[in-house]
Amino acid sequence: MNTQRAHPGRPRLVPATTTATPHDQVLHAAARLFVTKGFAATSTREIAEKVGIRQASLYYHFAGKDEILAELLQRSVRPTVDKVEQIERLAASETHETALYVLASVDVHTLAEAPHNIGVLATLPDVTSSGAYDAFRSTRAELADAYGRLAAQVAGPGIADGPEPRHLGEMLMHLVEVVTSLRGIGVTIDHATADAIASTCLRACGISDDRIATAATSAARLVGRLPDMP
Amino acid sequence: MNTQRAHPGRPRLVPATTTATPHDQVLHAAARLFVTKGFAATSTREIAEKVGIRQASLYYHFAGKDEILAELLQRSVRPTVDKVEQIERLAASETHETALYVLASVDVHTLAEAPHNIGVLATLPDVTSSGAYDAFRSTRAELADAYGRLAAQVAGPGIADGPEPRHLGEMLMHLVEVVTSLRGIGVTIDHATADAIASTCLRACGISDDRIATAATSAARLVGRLPDMP
Repeated sequence: MNTQRAHPGRPRLVPATTTATPHDQVLHAAARLFVTKGFAATSTREIAEKVGIRQASLYYHFAGKDEILAELLQRSVRPTVDKVEQIERLAASETHETALYVLASVDVHTLAEAPHNIGVLATLPDVTSSGAYDAFRSTRAELADAYGRLAAQVAGPGIADGPEPRHLGEMLMHLVEVVTSLRGIGVTIDHATADAIASTCLRACGISDDRIATAATSAARLVGRLPDMP
Repeated sequence: MNTQRAHPGRPRLVPATTTATPHDQVLHAAARLFVTKGFAATSTREIAEKVGIRQASLYYHFAGKDEILAELLQRSVRPTVDKVEQIERLAASETHETALYVLASVDVHTLAEAPHNIGVLATLPDVTSSGAYDAFRSTRAELADAYGRLAAQVAGPGIADGPEPRHLGEMLMHLVEVVTSLRGIGVTIDHATADAIASTCLRACGISDDRIATAATSAARLVGRLPDMP
């Protein structure tokens, strides 16, 4: 079906004047192919063709498809995890509730910005079992743990003592991952949706509406101040 | 790598004395292969080999791989959707809160029982875009709508008026789908976990702990009475 042939030197799809590095151009083209035609059905040759580089050049940047997908998946969690320490420090100066609201807001933003909604591929069998994705799985576990720690502080004793805090963390992380499904059905993730998701996280920990409103107000003030925040 | 060859007539993996129909044996073998080695990497020849039937016999039961996966995916939602009408009727005789608790509990049970945790494949690009999965996507949308309708009744006006009720429904459905992630990391879904998940759904709608406890008690009594319920 594909009438395009490898043709090194033909004009690049992304003009060379773009600021995207070749590394990022490969990631972008791969994400589009993985999500539209599937990971297994996509070859590195095809990715190289889309970028307009030789397959050999692609291997200069990446060891193979797994490494490309692993880096893409990291982009759906790493930006959030990189801010976890800073967010948890907010719990001291502000409240645990505000910190959890900020964590959820930042995570919504990361998932909304992830190239080509790449998060949909996080449950691929390759990803859940192959060693090539150990780093991604461990980053994702870090995020679940951060949700778990904050949720355990925020939730009343009856809730926090119930399931393991880690499970509560997994539940909240899953709830926020609704972003991936909403994007999948064409919903634009605007501020109202992001606030609804973060509020629902706090509500799931048993926080009352007035305290959620307070956390939301503080979070709105803080989110703009964190470096590289939405 | 695969040293097994097509060998019609060799002893069946699942003995013929089993009560599973050939149709179900194909589904079972396919689910295991799809989840362990990936959907795209699995051939119908390989599925037929695992069952110990000819490839031609497999095509007597299914038009192809897509039809097999579509039926498997339906098994992760259909058992819940089939009970939605009955569950929504509970809202009249009991409370909307109890009905939502029952819906979440039934859904947890369905996801915990789905063969080989097949729900992990629901976000495959093929599944989210190909016409072969229209029926599955529409069943899943029915389930999200049911969550949305009950959540809109249960949640206070401040919550229900916020995001579209459909989005709140999507969030709760996502929260319950944590079952798939928990199974993926080897967690057994016991009654305590199921109760924690259903309770968190109600809490996410702003329900207080004492009312959640009441709904949980009523749900425990009712779930056993619904036909084919856990």
